[in-house]
This record gives sequence, structure tokens and C-alpha cells, in this order.
Amino acid sequence: MDRIRRNERMTAMMKLLSGTPNRIFTLNSFCEMFGSAKSTMSEDVDLLRQVAEQFDLGEVDTVTGAAGGVRYRPVVSRAGALATIRGLCEKLSGTERVLPGGFLYYSDILSTPEIVNRMGEIIATEYYRAEPDFVLTMETKGIPVAFATANALGVPLVIARHSSRVYEGSAVNINYVSGGGSIETMSLSRRAVKENQQALIVDDFLKGGGTARGMVELMREFNVTVVGMAFVMSTAEPEKKRISGEKALMTLKVTDGEPASAEVKPAAWLEEKPGA
Amino acid sequence: MDRIRRNERMTAMMKLLSGTPNRIFTLNSFCEMFGSAKSTMSEDVDLLRQVAEQFDLGEVDTVTGAAGGVRYRPVVSRAGALATIRGLCEKLSGTERVLPGGFLYYSDILSTPEIVNRMGEIIATEYYRAEPDFVLTMETKGIPVAFATANALGVPLVIARHSSRVYEGSAVNINYVSGGGSIETMSLSRRAVKENQQALIVDDFLKGGGTARGMVELMREFNVTVVGMAFVMSTAEPEKKRISGEKALMTLKVTDGEPASAEVKPAAWLEEKPGA
Repeated sequence: MDRIRRNERMTAMMKLLSGTPNRIFTLNSFCEMFGSAKSTMSEDVDLLRQVAEQFDLGEVDTVTGAAGGVRYRPVVSRAGALATIRGLCEKLSGTERVLPGGFLYYSDILSTPEIVNRMGEIIATEYYRAEPDFVLTMETKGIPVAFATANALGVPLVIARHSSRVYEGSAVNINYVSGGGSIETMSLSRRAVKENQQALIVDDFLKGGGTARGMVELMREFNVTVVGMAFVMSTAEPEKKRISGEKALMTLKVTDGEPASAEVKPAAWLEEKPGA
Repeated sequence: MDRIRRNERMTAMMKLLSGTPNRIFTLNSFCEMFGSAKSTMSEDVDLLRQVAEQFDLGEVDTVTGAAGGVRYRPVVSRAGALATIRGLCEKLSGTERVLPGGFLYYSDILSTPEIVNRMGEIIATEYYRAEPDFVLTMETKGIPVAFATANALGVPLVIARHSSRVYEGSAVNINYVSGGGSIETMSLSRRAVKENQQALIVDDFLKGGGTARGMVELMREFNVTVVGMAFVMSTAEPEKKRISGEKALMTLKVTDGEPASAEVKPAAWLEEKPGA
């Protein structure tokens, strides 16, 4: 075999690293793959880090210690996040997408992979430090963005259901008060999570916070800590939700009128400096 | 600014291409990004193609014509697909995952991003030629793998629901006969698809084929052509399904006994030569 060149090694490494975000690859595994010395691989990794930074493509990191190695995180800069969300807000605002009852049609946004992946990366960027063990969502509409977030964090997705199913084994059911004020059931398979894990809740829509509150209570039943909550869209009203500490990407206000119009804005935290 | 080196350009291009599969990037957009001549970029793309091939990382293609450019497809070799699926079959076979009623617990497989993405790539590999405009699934369990397939194909995901929701606007409802023999409803927002599009159906589980048949009929209501159907798991019994022409990744047979045991095998087509 010909000697593998640096540009070949770097290209292959970037594909492998960015294809499985937040997973640590040992330097040895790359040494074996390319038949290169460890010092050469270290230089390659340094260059990868610089390229990722230069072109705003996320972060390549070296993790030290026994389980150490190289990992890629699709970290999105605050400026990049704000630009993406502003674009979405523009697309969603106006009269065209308002449905009877003051609802907003944005199912298409929630299932276009390029948009969903980007939203997942923006959310993941906020929660790498919290180190969730899994992402929790409630069926149905938030599943793609919750999955994309889980992918960016390199952790599994866990889906709570409206009712327990025979093909998921024994389950924990809880009741919660939905947005409409009715009592609903939320169900999760016993096998889905382990005690003392950390959960990040991700969902598409936050209004009163009833469903989110239900998910928090469900996690309590499993002795799981909720380390964060993120939503694609949060309504301006009611201002006081049944949960707190959440991060939404956008806020929605539907104004009366003929026709009714939607005002969609980037959430306030996106306009702040990161870490502020 | 320093001149951007080949290894930097190639690394950045691979990240961008593989991050948005099946999307065509014009050579000009790369020329602008790196301040390079078109001839240089062509050489870079040739090298990218070779690297992808050498390390079995999918395909980098040049598309000619007015809308031409470079694209990446996460094409999985048949040997690679079979190795992945064999590994999953091993994990799922045995007594541990069999639930009362002869069901198999594999929700964890359906929501681990690394596994789900790989399954999506294996399915997409089979349907690039059919050129679907979107992937259709029925809530809930198949959504992650359907999303991963849509991502690999670079098309939107469309999710049919059990009942129409106010926040999805006017919808088309159809009735279908479920596996249990009862009449169920399937609903899809009118805005979700357009006439004369092509759909690829992706779902987690195929038994009698009632739900799949329902999706086919739903697409007929929208004047959409179904160009393929793919499932993660298909049961060995009943052998005759209410649909035909589908591709499953694995077949499941649960044998009686104390305890009952699951026999999970790669689907027959995976053992054949591609294109046979």
C-alpha cells in the first residue's frame, strides 16, 4: 500500500469524527487505521482543530486521561445560532402559517433534516457541559429535533408515550395536566432509563408547561435528574410556565386581526453573550 | 490571509459535504470559500472521491449539467451493511428481549443515534436511484430511523398521525385495518406533501402489513407515488403481507418455549449481490 498522505488522513478523520459527534476516538485507533506514528497523528489532530475553528465547523478536542482521545463536537457559535434562528423566524412570521385557533403550522420546519440537525446542534451546544446521559421527549412532533440533539450529544433518545404499549414491556405511567386542562397519561418503559442518570428534555412546543412538567415528574419516578429543558418554540403567553430554567429557540405571539398574524422572534438568551 | 492548504480545503469540504448528504454544492461556492481556482478545486474533489472510496466512507460524486456540482452520499457497501445488521441480530436474538405476548424489545436500538444513522444510510443506499421526494412514516417508533433515512437522502420527513391535530391544519384522514383487525384512522396534514411527488415509506416494524397498506392508500389520496418501502424488522409469520416489494433489514421469529426465544436474522436480500 502507498503511504497515506496527510490530506487523506485528515479528510477521513474529519468524516469519522463528525459522523459520530462527541464520541472519543483513541489516537491508537487512528494510528492503526493509517499506519502512522503517534506523533504524526498528533500533528494531524492539531491541524484538524485549526481547520474546524477557521471555517466555523464545530470543535475538535483532545481529551486526556485513561479514556482519552480525540472527539468532535458540532458546537455552534452564538452568532451562527442567532443567524440561523433569525432566518427561521422570518420564514415563520406573518399571516400565511396561522391556523384556525391561533396555532402555527411549522411541522415542515420540524422535519427538514438540514434545519432539524442545525437546531439539534444549537441545543446541544448549550448542554455539553451538563453531560446528559440521554435526551427525553414526548411523542410525536418533537422526536426529530430531540433525535438530532441526542445525535449531537452522542447519547440515546428516550421517547415517552401517551399510553403504554405491549411491545415495550412493563412501564411507569404518570398522570399530568395538559394544556387544555384535562388529565392525560404519560408512559415510559422501565427498560428505557437507569436510576441516577441525567436527562435533557427536548420538545417542539412550550405553552403552559403541563407536558414538560409531566416529563419532569416522570423522571422523578425513575430517580433521574433533569439537567436541562429545551424547546423549539415557546409561546409569549402565558408568560409564567409550569416549569422554569428552560431554553427555547423562538418565541411565538399570534396577534388578533383579519387575518391573524404570527410574530416569531429569537428567544432572548440567544441575543446575550454565551455563558452570560 | 494565508493561502489555504489542500489538506485544510479537503477537510472542510468533507465536513460540509458529509454533513448535508445528497445536497449538491457548486464548485464555485467552494472556489469562493477558499479563494482557489476551479482547476484546483477539481483536483481536490478527485482526491476526496478517492479517500471516500479507499476508507469505505461513502461516495463523493461530481454531478454535471446546469445544476451540477459535488455531492456526498453515505452509500454503504453490501458487505458493510451485512456486517452491521449481523451485529444487531446477535444483540437482539435470544431470550432476554422477549416480552409477554411474543413481542421483542428493541426500542433502544431504534433510538441510539449511531445505530439509527447507520440503518438510515443502509436504507438510503437502496433508494437513491428511486429519487424519493420525501420519506413517510407513521408515528411513533419508526420516526428516528425514518428521519435518519430522510437525512441520508437529503429530503424531508413526513409523519402520519393517528388522528388529526388542530395545529397541523386541514388534513386527509383514511381508515385502515390494523394488525389486530380493528379499524384505525391515519391522518396527514394537507400541507405536508404535494401532488405528483414520490414517497419512500420507512417504518420500524412489519407484521401483517395493515399499517403499511394504510400509508400506501393515504399516498393515493394525495396523488403521490410510493417508490419503495423499508422496515427495520419484519416478522417471519405471516409470510404473506398485505404489501409487497418491501425491504426489511431483519426478520424476526419468536419460538415457543419456557422461556420464549427470539431468532433475528438479516433479511435475505442483504445476503445477495447488490443490484441482483
